[in-house]
Amino acid sequence: MVIRTTVWGENVHEHKNKTVAEVYPLTMHGTIAEALNRDPGIAATTVTLQDPDHGMTAEKLAETDVLIWWGHAAHVQVQDAVVERVCDAVWGGMGIIFLHSAHFSKPFKRLMGAPCNLTWREAGERERLWVTSRNHPIAAGIGDSFTLEHEEMYGEPFGVPEPLETVFVSWFQGGEVFRSGLTYKRGAGNVFYFRPGHETYPTYHDANVQRVIANAVKWAHNPAARLADPNAAPNVPVDKAPEKITERGPKLHSHGEEGLR
Amino acid sequence: MVIRTTVWGENVHEHKNKTVAEVYPLTMHGTIAEALNRDPGIAATTVTLQDPDHGMTAEKLAETDVLIWWGHAAHVQVQDAVVERVCDAVWGGMGIIFLHSAHFSKPFKRLMGAPCNLTWREAGERERLWVTSRNHPIAAGIGDSFTLEHEEMYGEPFGVPEPLETVFVSWFQGGEVFRSGLTYKRGAGNVFYFRPGHETYPTYHDANVQRVIANAVKWAHNPAARLADPNAAPNVPVDKAPEKITERGPKLHSHGEEGLR
Amino acid sequence: MVIRTTVWGENVHEHKNKTVAEVYPLTMHGTIAEALNRDPGIAATTVTLQDPDHGMTAEKLAETDVLIWWGHAAHVQVQDAVVERVCDAVWGGMGIIFLHSAHFSKPFKRLMGAPCNLTWREAGERERLWVTSRNHPIAAGIGDSFTLEHEEMYGEPFGVPEPLETVFVSWFQGGEVFRSGLTYKRGAGNVFYFRPGHETYPTYHDANVQRVIANAVKWAHNPAARLADPNAAPNVPVDKAPEKITERGPKLHSHGEEGLR
Amino acid sequence: MVIRTTVWGENVHEHKNKTVAEVYPLTMHGTIAEALNRDPGIAATTVTLQDPDHGMTAEKLAETDVLIWWGHAAHVQVQDAVVERVCDAVWGGMGIIFLHSAHFSKPFKRLMGAPCNLTWREAGERERLWVTSRNHPIAAGIGDSFTLEHEEMYGEPFGVPEPLETVFVSWFQGGEVFRSGLTYKRGAGNVFYFRPGHETYPTYHDANVQRVIANAVKWAHNPAARLADPNAAPNVPVDKAPEKITERGPKLHSHGEEGLR
Repeated sequence: MVIRTTVWGENVHEHKNKTVAEVYPLTMHGTIAEALNRDPGIAATTVTLQDPDHGMTAEKLAETDVLIWWGHAAHVQVQDAVVERVCDAVWGGMGIIFLHSAHFSKPFKRLMGAPCNLTWREAGERERLWVTSRNHPIAAGIGDSFTLEHEEMYGEPFGVPEPLETVFVSWFQGGEVFRSGLTYKRGAGNVFYFRPGHETYPTYHDANVQRVIANAVKWAHNPAARLADPNAAPNVPVDKAPEKITERGPKLHSHGEEGLR
Repeated sequence: MVIRTTVWGENVHEHKNKTVAEVYPLTMHGTIAEALNRDPGIAATTVTLQDPDHGMTAEKLAETDVLIWWGHAAHVQVQDAVVERVCDAVWGGMGIIFLHSAHFSKPFKRLMGAPCNLTWREAGERERLWVTSRNHPIAAGIGDSFTLEHEEMYGEPFGVPEPLETVFVSWFQGGEVFRSGLTYKRGAGNVFYFRPGHETYPTYHDANVQRVIANAVKWAHNPAARLADPNAAPNVPVDKAPEKITERGPKLHSHGEEGLR
Repeated sequence: MVIRTTVWGENVHEHKNKTVAEVYPLTMHGTIAEALNRDPGIAATTVTLQDPDHGMTAEKLAETDVLIWWGHAAHVQVQDAVVERVCDAVWGGMGIIFLHSAHFSKPFKRLMGAPCNLTWREAGERERLWVTSRNHPIAAGIGDSFTLEHEEMYGEPFGVPEPLETVFVSWFQGGEVFRSGLTYKRGAGNVFYFRPGHETYPTYHDANVQRVIANAVKWAHNPAARLADPNAAPNVPVDKAPEKITERGPKLHSHGEEGLR
Repeated sequence: MVIRTTVWGENVHEHKNKTVAEVYPLTMHGTIAEALNRDPGIAATTVTLQDPDHGMTAEKLAETDVLIWWGHAAHVQVQDAVVERVCDAVWGGMGIIFLHSAHFSKPFKRLMGAPCNLTWREAGERERLWVTSRNHPIAAGIGDSFTLEHEEMYGEPFGVPEPLETVFVSWFQGGEVFRSGLTYKRGAGNVFYFRPGHETYPTYHDANVQRVIANAVKWAHNPAARLADPNAAPNVPVDKAPEKITERGPKLHSHGEEGLR
């Protein structure tokens, strides 16, 4: 089964910043998708902020097994209704991977329920990512560590909830550390945050980074059928209770009434 | 040190439903606060949905060490700006306890980043809460289990993130189970969800329930000073890096520029 | 790729207790293996306590992707050296599934580092298992719950560490609950505990139970190569440090010396 | 209430290695205890490997609210029976803090159920510990980070289970990182691992290190009464079931029989 993967690109800096355009002539999302498509188990397409509904129509989400999100300059331009639609898809079972500056994207903050803040420095310093969970599938084929010669620094404390597992921790030349690979589950959807990817450096051309993203796509993919309504809160009437019981005591709700929200 | 505790009450059913008014002549929030005030370590006050800013002004939040939230019929009436203010306080270090139907309150859903849904039945059936974490401080003074003769059923799957710890699991007469005591941390704030408390039953008069809530107040209290800005994402300039580094490579940001959000 | 699965059976009650022999004419481990072998992705074999090295030779472990363990009456007869060998295999990447009374088996207690105790009652009562993690792969094809008409009761508090995820919680007719599906990782190995399976009831003939065990085999399987020495604690000499540093200060160890254990 | 704290010292290098003797004229455990005793809420005493039962008699454990463990050269000399006694105390509710090379101590490995291995280098390099959980009580009074000018390097992957919370992550000058503050719960006991403390450096004279250890003592202290038997697995007879049930089906156990182990 091929995993249908959609790469969401903000697609702003590629057109406004000469350095970014030179490093990513195919755009960042295009580069990420191209690398993924070399894996026979993955079929990647791209959408952008500028597309109608930012490319995140109900149809596109229904055909997306795993969504990858990169944004930085234009988080506020993402419509709230689209954010809710994306989160609904995640809760229903779509996998999602947030890259680098997407730590401040609306869907990530919405799914984390936390500030998602950090410290940062753009100095082209060296980053080394260490695997902290032996033989985790997201780190398959990576040794105990790999190095990116030029990256933006992100430093702790990283304002996210304690993850299910910490898969990578980064060392930075300037003296900071960062939990740079974190797994979560929200509803039926698997969530992975992966730190590297500042737009002025060739990070998404790096073979190890490409491998981690492909691994993460496979990890995040939930083959179960998407939940029809991930927010449903069904009433179980007395006569449908698994064990026979008799209703008693005062009631707030009439029979057949919807629950309050 | 006395823990300043604010009990937020929706304060709707106490005035519209005769049963609720009879069970809780002091209102639900008033009953909860009165029980807490019997503990010399806690000073509890109440606010309601109907107060200006729903009682959740910046001043009140600044004076609140732990907030307790009960709502059911009027979740949608809570203004989004107030929800953000409450979440900021939590991220800065305020403890928060969500009771029963507050699983669908705006602040809980915002902090969880998940659907927070469940199944339910209002049949006055028996609930038995079992402690699943030996000698957890929130279960202090409770034996291995305690029983509520009449409660609304909430059933799994409960659409919340995996907690830090599962403290209670409920058994229901009609055949369901529910993870009814769950701990989380969001930013610097401790979060506890506690299931019991349907408004037509005398749950908040129960000594065990009162004890758990008082224990949870003490557990959730973070004595550290509230963070001034829990969302800050400060730049660390090259000359302030912990280790001496030299800036190199192309840059997106000018010196002294704010980060993008 | 077919997952090589070994079912370890204590193989005592099948020969000493007439009821068990009648319920499981193929033995319990034989019944479990036969059900697994209906899945084309799994190749299951069996070993027993009575085999040399309890069937857990280095060779057999090297050929085992996932080990399933059922024991009850003869935990103490399992040699400690074999327990360490099994744990080494887990830490190196072998998946392991513990069934029912294996909560008190030596390898489970060794991997948990906790008492693993519980309350129990053998009364043939009804058990209902509820899924607590939406669409978890271990619950694939199971609805929100399934029922076993006759089972032994296991009750909370269950003396195990907080799991990575709670996948099932059981309801018992007699009033107790139990976290009956729990995931862990130890070293590079995935660990799953699954509660049902008292030997006098036909639990391992149940289609839902069989399905969960097959799902768990797939979940627990780590396709990465087994770690050669999962206990290695290698010295990284100064001249092999990822960043160039100069040795300084007093030293306890001479160059090339092994670390202390 | 004063927290009765026992500092367990291996007490070998202080007498065999001139550097260690000079850095710690009061011994390492003596230095740690002296610093703790400056806190009016803590009453610390010391015991050593050389004491009868390594100082870990049933009486001493009964009078210990929190145990601190430092060992390195003589892990193997610790008797297995004493290790079990210590673990029983933890499971019953005693807090325990493992320092530095105690990652390979018998009680830590026993409680973790994992290899507890790592990489290492003794080069007197700089270590910087970053707080990864905002305002965690164990980090109270510490800013976002603190630095130790000379320390032994410990590197990832650290072979321990995923913790409840990661409180500190270390940066090392030579290019490695390490999760250096980790919380766990085992039975009713709170467990904290804290990395710094190589014996040839003055780490336990450092004010920040002393503060973290004192904070950890308070965090680890469980004021609940110690469990009488943390390994008990009581039978709940049919007539004592919380809900009335009738026994049915075949039985393995006779009435009043002990469970199997």
